Amino acid sequence: MLTLHGYYRSSAAYRVRIALNLKGLDHRKTFIHLRNGHQFSAAYAELNPQQQVPTLETDGGDMLVQSSAIIEWLEETWPEPPLLPADALGRQRVRALAAVPGCDIHPIGNLRVLKYLQEELGQGPDAVAAWARHWIELGFAGLERMLAEHPATGRFCHGDAPTMADLFLVPQAFNAERFNADMDKFPTVARISAACNDLEAFAAAAPGNQDDAE
Amino acid sequence: MLTLHGYYRSSAAYRVRIALNLKGLDHRKTFIHLRNGHQFSAAYAELNPQQQVPTLETDGGDMLVQSSAIIEWLEETWPEPPLLPADALGRQRVRALAAVPGCDIHPIGNLRVLKYLQEELGQGPDAVAAWARHWIELGFAGLERMLAEHPATGRFCHGDAPTMADLFLVPQAFNAERFNADMDKFPTVARISAACNDLEAFAAAAPGNQDDAE
Repeated sequence: MLTLHGYYRSSAAYRVRIALNLKGLDHRKTFIHLRNGHQFSAAYAELNPQQQVPTLETDGGDMLVQSSAIIEWLEETWPEPPLLPADALGRQRVRALAAVPGCDIHPIGNLRVLKYLQEELGQGPDAVAAWARHWIELGFAGLERMLAEHPATGRFCHGDAPTMADLFLVPQAFNAERFNADMDKFPTVARISAACNDLEAFAAAAPGNQDDAE
Repeated sequence: MLTLHGYYRSSAAYRVRIALNLKGLDHRKTFIHLRNGHQFSAAYAELNPQQQVPTLETDGGDMLVQSSAIIEWLEETWPEPPLLPADALGRQRVRALAAVPGCDIHPIGNLRVLKYLQEELGQGPDAVAAWARHWIELGFAGLERMLAEHPATGRFCHGDAPTMADLFLVPQAFNAERFNADMDKFPTVARISAACNDLEAFAAAAPGNQDDAE
């Protein structure tokens, strides 16, 4: 059985939780408390050299890191239901849509970056929250255009079944709410996020439904 | 023929240049001057809704964005020489190694983020450079462990031929030099970067060899 080492509020772990649920894969979960610094323990560093979550542990004892690479592996290993479309241009589009939160929003606003702003650069809570909102709204502005202006957008980011793109969108939309981003400016992103959250695979993966939720 | 819209010093465009060269694909290049804000022109926004580089324009007029998704598309469309290994676990590893610069280093230290630190948070040049170095060294510390401790690491990140992982490592190592990161701490990263730069496909893609280099 697979074991997911995660944290309830980690966007990257949240993406993998959704993927495991959509694929219907039985798995165990352990929780690494990021705010309390448990990712820096020597024991966890053995599992994940970057001391980040998630880590997906296989039956064979392989430790898979980096959410996007884990999700590609899940897709290759358990192709059904598919999280990527069948055509190469469609796959390119889905991966690009996923990369907007994955590369252009989330890394700039995650816990360790916000901590650096606070602790090393002496920024107060308002400046830190404004920073997080700025990158969310800038990234979502691009994502909104990529979705609203493209004929392949359907009930979900690409057609009428969830793809890898939705796995990245939903945790970022959750995070956007925490930082009071103005989602009225991104109606397509908000609509797709709501459609996803109607599905059990997404709802069960939500931070509030994890055993380590506070 | 493919057209790459890029900028000589963009890490993301640099990755795609290497991929095009390794695949031996004829292509045109245009240059979008990021420091002068040419990515914000209305004309460029039509090509790339995020107003970033790179954009890869196909013969059919499709505009492909996000370097990792572009490289996956190149790999699927022109499989030789392969940039991903044949086995699923190897592919997972290579994608994870690529994601360290792609998601955990580059996004936090790119031009727009450094500009925000300067212009919105009033940080001086020393603090901005220290920020860039901090995320480079933190990311490379993880990457070094992932490479040095794994039996699949060879002359390159995964075996003795370049893969997607090397396409991400080299531009980040170039960027690390600009910010005076201490590469002595990352001997495997430095060794692989040098091995890559011995290859014509990497050397020809270097920022200094682009027509818009300053």
